[in-house]
Amino acid sequence: MARKAGSDGSKTAEAIRAAGLRLIFEHGYEGMSLRDLAQIVGIQPGSLYNHITTKQALLFDFLVEHMTRLTEALDAALAGIESPLARLDTFIEFHLRYHLTRRMEVFVNNSELRSLEPQNRAVVTGLRRDYERRLEQILAEGTRSGALNVPDVTIATFAIIAQLTGVVGWYDPKGRLGEDEIIAIHRQLVVGGLLPIP
Amino acid sequence: MARKAGSDGSKTAEAIRAAGLRLIFEHGYEGMSLRDLAQIVGIQPGSLYNHITTKQALLFDFLVEHMTRLTEALDAALAGIESPLARLDTFIEFHLRYHLTRRMEVFVNNSELRSLEPQNRAVVTGLRRDYERRLEQILAEGTRSGALNVPDVTIATFAIIAQLTGVVGWYDPKGRLGEDEIIAIHRQLVVGGLLPIP
Repeated sequence: MARKAGSDGSKTAEAIRAAGLRLIFEHGYEGMSLRDLAQIVGIQPGSLYNHITTKQALLFDFLVEHMTRLTEALDAALAGIESPLARLDTFIEFHLRYHLTRRMEVFVNNSELRSLEPQNRAVVTGLRRDYERRLEQILAEGTRSGALNVPDVTIATFAIIAQLTGVVGWYDPKGRLGEDEIIAIHRQLVVGGLLPIP
Repeated sequence: MARKAGSDGSKTAEAIRAAGLRLIFEHGYEGMSLRDLAQIVGIQPGSLYNHITTKQALLFDFLVEHMTRLTEALDAALAGIESPLARLDTFIEFHLRYHLTRRMEVFVNNSELRSLEPQNRAVVTGLRRDYERRLEQILAEGTRSGALNVPDVTIATFAIIAQLTGVVGWYDPKGRLGEDEIIAIHRQLVVGGLLPIP
């Protein structure tokens, strides 16, 4: 099969992205070096600049892409689902499945906001708020309809996302529980805390 | 007042500890330098070694001390409280109050386990399990007594701790909600998800 023009370049770009993420995960943003990154990818340090402009741009692009993809995938999962309880169920399942297998991405996303320059941090923080707002709206709609009894919509949003994201800290694909069981357990924990008092 | 012998030394040790924590928080373990640490504390780089042996020991000692103090304080808070529901309430309140104002400690504790040498990491992971086991026991006792309906004691333990610890990501002492309100909201979210189905 003929090789498409540019496929080498995009393969290199993808290799740089993957190795860059791993290096930030293992050493932290300040601790990682672009020299090591070039070595892992197998190119000269100078050639790196054909693909990325700066170390800051590498981190920023990664975080923007991570958050953008996450929110787009959530919107696709929620499309056509109407009732607040069903939307909450969908959110829980979506967030868990998306995060269970993305330990490095989640870790870097949560630990390296500090390393973004202020204007970049504002962009990424805005994208995070966009995602959080989806859950906030579900909780607000559920409160209005009487399906849910949410003590504080904003705080509940933060608390639920922290709880669900916590799975990346201990999930083991070869462990005792499969994805479906983990989802069922978290559904009970989350939804139980939000139901109207009978 | 006469200055006690050794008070200068212990003041310096405390200044090293505080500045070291802040540098790890801001730059990551690999990104921080002992040279910067000495400069902030106002001593010669060589004098640092009168107080700490290595950068690894600085991180390790900090994490051991953090986890040891946390578990001791929890045991003191739980002392004399008998019923599983009251113990759960106490755990929630204790964990929130302890963490709300310790953003740097929590961040370093969660982000720099990777930077510990294997035998040190095993020690700190063991101390974390000791702490988690306190909540696990409360949930197990509550399940036995019928006061709680816990879907999976181990996973619920991880999920609750992740949820409660999440407050450090957004808590603002000058913000809309005080500590008591934040505790009440989390009590409803956590306990509601663990009550028997009526």
